Amino acid sequence: MGVELYTYFRSSAAYRVRIALNLKRLSYGPRFIHLAKGEQHRPDYRAINPQKLVPALVDRGTVLTQSLAIIEYLNDTYPEPPLLPRRRDERAYVRALAQIIACDIHPLNNLRVLRYLEHTMGQDEAARIAWIRHWIREGFEAFEAQLERHELSGRFCFGDMPTLADICLVPQVFSARRFGCDLSDFPKIRAIDENCQTLAAFRDAAPEQQPDAE
Amino acid sequence: MGVELYTYFRSSAAYRVRIALNLKRLSYGPRFIHLAKGEQHRPDYRAINPQKLVPALVDRGTVLTQSLAIIEYLNDTYPEPPLLPRRRDERAYVRALAQIIACDIHPLNNLRVLRYLEHTMGQDEAARIAWIRHWIREGFEAFEAQLERHELSGRFCFGDMPTLADICLVPQVFSARRFGCDLSDFPKIRAIDENCQTLAAFRDAAPEQQPDAE
Repeated sequence: MGVELYTYFRSSAAYRVRIALNLKRLSYGPRFIHLAKGEQHRPDYRAINPQKLVPALVDRGTVLTQSLAIIEYLNDTYPEPPLLPRRRDERAYVRALAQIIACDIHPLNNLRVLRYLEHTMGQDEAARIAWIRHWIREGFEAFEAQLERHELSGRFCFGDMPTLADICLVPQVFSARRFGCDLSDFPKIRAIDENCQTLAAFRDAAPEQQPDAE
Repeated sequence: MGVELYTYFRSSAAYRVRIALNLKRLSYGPRFIHLAKGEQHRPDYRAINPQKLVPALVDRGTVLTQSLAIIEYLNDTYPEPPLLPRRRDERAYVRALAQIIACDIHPLNNLRVLRYLEHTMGQDEAARIAWIRHWIREGFEAFEAQLERHELSGRFCFGDMPTLADICLVPQVFSARRFGCDLSDFPKIRAIDENCQTLAAFRDAAPEQQPDAE
């Protein structure tokens, strides 16, 4: 196979790609980049990903970055099981759910942003936690409303098939719990997260299961 | 046709979809949502998009949200001209470039975030402008490095064919100029932006060309 994944146990974006690789039953060699210790700034990693973020995936010499682009690539290259529906409008629904998280929640709450809020804007821990919870709540309200409206969800965001939307949702729920978000207003999100946890592909990708977990 | 686009002249995400519609030569009926006046919070718009963001696109009764999901849908539905390369690794490259902007620059700098920084965190205008410029510079450094490394760019980010990457880049360059970012370190980005401006599809989508421009 020869797939290598540059990963950090606690990174939501790396967690997504780990789930996708597991769903596709692809084995991979993990390469650990310790974000909290700043290893993403090392020249050898910048040569892999100039954006200094994880994940990056190397498949037979091709370097891929950005978690959603990596997962679409995996889905194009290893079609079974599919991670997107066949119908165009249903694919758009799944991608839009994924992007609520990948564009409008996660980038606001990642390490580099929290550091800027602390070191450049002088925001204390309480203010940073309030910020994190605010954007998770905003995003989850929209996510839950979309699940209700479209009536396409079942055990998972799209029927009974795990897709890109679930792959993004589960790491975000993990992060929400870590930061003490109240999830009581989001029954559909909680039920889908629980259903995902019945699958080894999701469980084995969890931060605490990783060799680099602390 | 019957395509309707909920748009705001200054929204980068709506600007992307306007470019895509123009490249596909699709006519559409614009519906104006004045973000600065808060029209996205009106119940009739929340019924369209519970995320209270623009754009939203309605195609023959199907409501689509999230600009990248909308553009992928348009590309799936109206294949010519293609907005993504044919090869899987090249598609991943174009999508990753688009996501540097759509995930890691733009969501940090949009109106709702700037308002939070001002009203909840008490950050003055100078601090907010520094924040905006910081995330644009971080993202553009990675974008320029990817263009240099992959040697796939030509007149546009991918050879001589306008793709999803250019569709995301041009509105972000517009926003960078609006906020006074220094672009002198990004010669490839500036050249591609200039080349895009030679095409009516890009020019006609610009904020100042919209009926709701101020």
